[in-house]
Amino acid sequence: MHKLLILSKRADEYCGLVEAARLPQLSMCAATDPAALAAEAFASDLVFGDPSAVARVLPRLDGVRWVQATWAGVEPLLDPALRRDYILTNARGVFGPLMSEYVFGYMLAHERRIIEKYETQKERRWDPRHPGTLRGKRLGLIGVGTIGAALARTAKHFGMHVSGYTRASEDCPDVDVYFHGDDLTTFVSSLDYLVAIAPNTLATRGLVDARVLSHLPSSAVFINPGRGSIVDESALAEALANGRLAGAALDVFQAEPLAPESPLWTLPNVAITSHTAAISFPEDITPLFVANYRRLLAGEPLRYRVDFEQGY
Amino acid sequence: MHKLLILSKRADEYCGLVEAARLPQLSMCAATDPAALAAEAFASDLVFGDPSAVARVLPRLDGVRWVQATWAGVEPLLDPALRRDYILTNARGVFGPLMSEYVFGYMLAHERRIIEKYETQKERRWDPRHPGTLRGKRLGLIGVGTIGAALARTAKHFGMHVSGYTRASEDCPDVDVYFHGDDLTTFVSSLDYLVAIAPNTLATRGLVDARVLSHLPSSAVFINPGRGSIVDESALAEALANGRLAGAALDVFQAEPLAPESPLWTLPNVAITSHTAAISFPEDITPLFVANYRRLLAGEPLRYRVDFEQGY
Repeated sequence: MHKLLILSKRADEYCGLVEAARLPQLSMCAATDPAALAAEAFASDLVFGDPSAVARVLPRLDGVRWVQATWAGVEPLLDPALRRDYILTNARGVFGPLMSEYVFGYMLAHERRIIEKYETQKERRWDPRHPGTLRGKRLGLIGVGTIGAALARTAKHFGMHVSGYTRASEDCPDVDVYFHGDDLTTFVSSLDYLVAIAPNTLATRGLVDARVLSHLPSSAVFINPGRGSIVDESALAEALANGRLAGAALDVFQAEPLAPESPLWTLPNVAITSHTAAISFPEDITPLFVANYRRLLAGEPLRYRVDFEQGY
Repeated sequence: MHKLLILSKRADEYCGLVEAARLPQLSMCAATDPAALAAEAFASDLVFGDPSAVARVLPRLDGVRWVQATWAGVEPLLDPALRRDYILTNARGVFGPLMSEYVFGYMLAHERRIIEKYETQKERRWDPRHPGTLRGKRLGLIGVGTIGAALARTAKHFGMHVSGYTRASEDCPDVDVYFHGDDLTTFVSSLDYLVAIAPNTLATRGLVDARVLSHLPSSAVFINPGRGSIVDESALAEALANGRLAGAALDVFQAEPLAPESPLWTLPNVAITSHTAAISFPEDITPLFVANYRRLLAGEPLRYRVDFEQGY
């Protein structure tokens, strides 16, 4: 018999969905608040939960064998002070469509001047300026995993040219041309849109710095729905303030929530969202737990295992 | 030898593109302003132009055999006082992708609360409210021609359910279910988004009236990038003002430009655009003229011929 602890702000929904899967050899308890756990919860060998909440109780989970994170980002569990004597799996492969809605929502808003038109409309003014179009525009993706592949597919649907910057992989059929290593500045130099969706690793930290931003055309828009660590935030703010970039849509930041005194809030053509580009819907995430639990029972390797050193 | 008159606000671009096609047996003249035509222009047998400008010179074009309109809408040429002793062809089959950018731009802006977030951002306020998603939402199309088919294809890309209201046709593979005739209220009753892209005909005039609007769920958004005549504008304004509809994106109106005193300008969650959802790009439209000219020389029937009585 396995004992499962479900620990999430949306524990009720996760609990109902796991129960509905009628998994064998499983008892479970659930909580939304890690401070309110019953003593028996600490005897759990399996955990399915939000990384920030799981990190708080991990030191007392001496019998834990496997943690399935409800999020893609597991930074709270990578703290070297925390135990690593268990298998950590994260959520992958489900965020592409949501990321696509975020990225194309803001790209279309830019082409269609949705904010500008919202402002002229307040003046009851017929605004005959023509919109732009995504067709023929150039999208560059930093990172082409499952999310990048989903963005590339949507870009092709809208008739865009797609280039990808990856460590080495070149296997997405919707990417027209690949760049690697030192080619980052060449990669960005002809883009209309730069989208960063690489994981937070040593190799990606601060990758989009002042030099890279200076090679982006001034007509380009930067979109970051991935990890705040990938961009030098002061360099980005400076480029936007000086008109060396046409705009940005930012969902992630070096520190969240973004501080009220950050210059990013009020820069022209910058949209700030609150790390909600691709939220975890329990109906998307629960099947990942269920499939991994079945693999556990069958003695098969779990999917989407995180390497504590690599960070993804 | 054929004599072609190019008459358009973008005459220079059209002229260059037609010249580049090196069409045989063709001489041409071009003008942006119908009031400034040289006398020899009236001897043209072929016209390629913007319908509003062509309508102004049509009475003097006694030798005209064929007019290729640069737009989809040819209302200015349907005035019964104007001659009809020529073949009129319009622009079709090229607006789907642009319409798709318009419709999905505003649908994603609605799901992603782009305007609301723009407003909270002004207050430097981290807004953790979750966005919605298009996935699983229900899109209803009034009219499923080439534009409707393009919208349906994009909707499927985003995981939506698509229903179509047509006179009789049921041949678009991306439409899940069809409705006809008296089923209009049933058709709208479960929609999240209603998009009208039917042509302006007697059958579609005023089709979206108070009764139809009252059957739409109050959470639904109405999008009209097609023809202003399809909707009862006062009934729409009333439904929006009373919260019986969640919002609208309107590109076309009963009278354009929309009068400053129209209540639509300031209703909540209403986006007004200026008949620019799908503008005619010369590089899209010229190939239609070129292909039809080749058909004319070969004695073949021209494509996209307009029936003056039916109006499309």
